Amino acid sequence: MYEGAVQDLIDELGRLPGIGPKSAQRIAFHVLQSDPADVERLAHALTEVKARVRFCEVCFNVAEAERCRVCLDPRRDVHAICVVEEPKDVVAIERTREFRGRYHVLGGAISPIDGIGPDDLRVRELLTRLADGTVTEVIIATDPNLEGEATASYLSRLLKDVGLRVTRLASGLPVGGDLEYADEVTLGRAFEGRRLIDV
Amino acid sequence: MYEGAVQDLIDELGRLPGIGPKSAQRIAFHVLQSDPADVERLAHALTEVKARVRFCEVCFNVAEAERCRVCLDPRRDVHAICVVEEPKDVVAIERTREFRGRYHVLGGAISPIDGIGPDDLRVRELLTRLADGTVTEVIIATDPNLEGEATASYLSRLLKDVGLRVTRLASGLPVGGDLEYADEVTLGRAFEGRRLIDV
Repeated sequence: MYEGAVQDLIDELGRLPGIGPKSAQRIAFHVLQSDPADVERLAHALTEVKARVRFCEVCFNVAEAERCRVCLDPRRDVHAICVVEEPKDVVAIERTREFRGRYHVLGGAISPIDGIGPDDLRVRELLTRLADGTVTEVIIATDPNLEGEATASYLSRLLKDVGLRVTRLASGLPVGGDLEYADEVTLGRAFEGRRLIDV
Repeated sequence: MYEGAVQDLIDELGRLPGIGPKSAQRIAFHVLQSDPADVERLAHALTEVKARVRFCEVCFNVAEAERCRVCLDPRRDVHAICVVEEPKDVVAIERTREFRGRYHVLGGAISPIDGIGPDDLRVRELLTRLADGTVTEVIIATDPNLEGEATASYLSRLLKDVGLRVTRLASGLPVGGDLEYADEVTLGRAFEGRRLIDV
């Protein structure tokens, strides 16, 4: 419906996740009315991210050098590895400031429906990192959903015999949430994982 | 929280309308995992739209030449002008195939709250187009909201003395909608504008 270049931009924007035809049109018209320098900055940020960002050769987190910032930081504890699905999970955990060890990014979770098995994830690379005995605890921080749980139990079975402490993040009520609105599985987990109150 | 280039992209994406921090992050990670050619196409579409698209010198619709496709089309009726707020409204009306005249894009609507008065819109340019008497009907198709209605009544008062037929798009129940869910203003307008059924 639009003139060539506008329609091309709407089409390209519509391929991004979470951008429907209406949003794509709205963004395209915003771009049309924006300062050319702003649009140039966005276009440049897109090409830069492809040119400069790669994956850390140790943990597969996003990195701008051979290793990511966490792996390069000498103050991080080398005895603990936290296993996550995606680089964005690293950011979420870093934000808590609760964990001072290193990460291992699997690149997804086991999902038979999507045809993703352990061989499609960076499991072999994890075992290689654990081989020299430096790491003493592996914290499995995959998502608390079906695929994440399947991945967590696969990994815990695999690592059981290695003689490591293997832990999983606690499930329970989200802080600030309303008990009334918690789903039954979460509430069940919160009961199961209840803790003594120290007084 | 992210390495430089990833954070830069998240920041730039977050400036687009309707893209919050979570969506920006999701799109940035999608870009990271995309084929470089796809990302290049998006970056190119952004710069192309700024380089190639301008506004029609007659009606201010988007155009890739001095005039837009509608103004260049010799089959369009030169006696009717449909006045809209934005170029996207032209597309919406073209999709109906109900109108064969030409357009005039105001570039917004009168909004005292946002400090937008008639002088900030292309009203003078509209009067210039009407000066030679070729146009006999002006259809005001501004949005059916406060600003659009204010603009419509301003324009109709302005054009009253020129001796033109000035019309406004009908308000009423949206086709396919549910009478029960219509707001009271819309329902009131639908009553006001009720028409005899020809039998």
